[in-house]
Amino acid sequence: MNIQLVVECVMLADDPTTFVTREVSDIEVEIGGIPGDRHYGILRPADSRQNIYPRGTMIANRRQISIVSVEECRRIAANMGVPEIRPEWLGANILVSGTDKLTELPAGARLLFPDGTGLICEGENLPCVGPGKVIEDVYKQTGLHRKFVPAARKSRGIVCSVEREGSIHRGDLVQIRLA
Amino acid sequence: MNIQLVVECVMLADDPTTFVTREVSDIEVEIGGIPGDRHYGILRPADSRQNIYPRGTMIANRRQISIVSVEECRRIAANMGVPEIRPEWLGANILVSGTDKLTELPAGARLLFPDGTGLICEGENLPCVGPGKVIEDVYKQTGLHRKFVPAARKSRGIVCSVEREGSIHRGDLVQIRLA
Repeated sequence: MNIQLVVECVMLADDPTTFVTREVSDIEVEIGGIPGDRHYGILRPADSRQNIYPRGTMIANRRQISIVSVEECRRIAANMGVPEIRPEWLGANILVSGTDKLTELPAGARLLFPDGTGLICEGENLPCVGPGKVIEDVYKQTGLHRKFVPAARKSRGIVCSVEREGSIHRGDLVQIRLA
Repeated sequence: MNIQLVVECVMLADDPTTFVTREVSDIEVEIGGIPGDRHYGILRPADSRQNIYPRGTMIANRRQISIVSVEECRRIAANMGVPEIRPEWLGANILVSGTDKLTELPAGARLLFPDGTGLICEGENLPCVGPGKVIEDVYKQTGLHRKFVPAARKSRGIVCSVEREGSIHRGDLVQIRLA
């Protein structure tokens, strides 16, 4: 994937009551992720995704930053039969445009930003039930939440960790480097 | 690769004048690597392997721990025409037995140890010139160093980072979990 992506929006999950993010003007990234975001930390407790460890075991945090694409959000919306899926509802930190295959980016690929900031792709963000409930609340269609996981498979974007600290802004061009 | 490996030896690079390691009874691993080892750190300066960053840029340290296999060390020795390649000469921290394909382990594979310690495979350790010079010094054959890089390709083992802290001992069984 030797294409250039554009940052359309950057977002922060700084409300402790929800994973839903809100748009901000820019995000600082440190080696533990985005300060102030709920996923910030050098370590994080293992959850059901890391079932090789007992739940709650402190492990290296490789799920610091969530990225989704405009094209894939549109595909999820079409698959669910709704007008729009907002990246905030998915808890995304970065929305990019320029690819309908972001979710296929292999673990180990690097994302480079204009100021030298570098992220490491840690692989596909497997869909879970949380965003479906947010989407159901928005559209007020009982049972809609059950459509999310199948609709978002291979379209829900990637999780990344920070390789080089810096900041990321709306409008940034993103270079992808495969390993 | 659903096979079980055995830790034959654990080693530390604690002499600041060389990357060559020495055998120890066990190694502690923390989120930044092995305390006291030259590759320990949450951050490390980028070198020629990370040429997407200016040399010396501080980046996440994904090259904390080097692992080689008995079988692949034998193959390097055969390829170079020498009786033996010691893991210490390669700067290895862990020598395992049980596979001649350790170097092919994909990035993202997990290595689990008996006390729950977990390492993340960060991929192949690309051969560089340093070990060739050590091997030439040992065998006192002028020019032998030039054989190392071609002889070690796809046989030089992997680099890992720490996912879960703990300790690793000679005799430990290692479970491999693919992503």
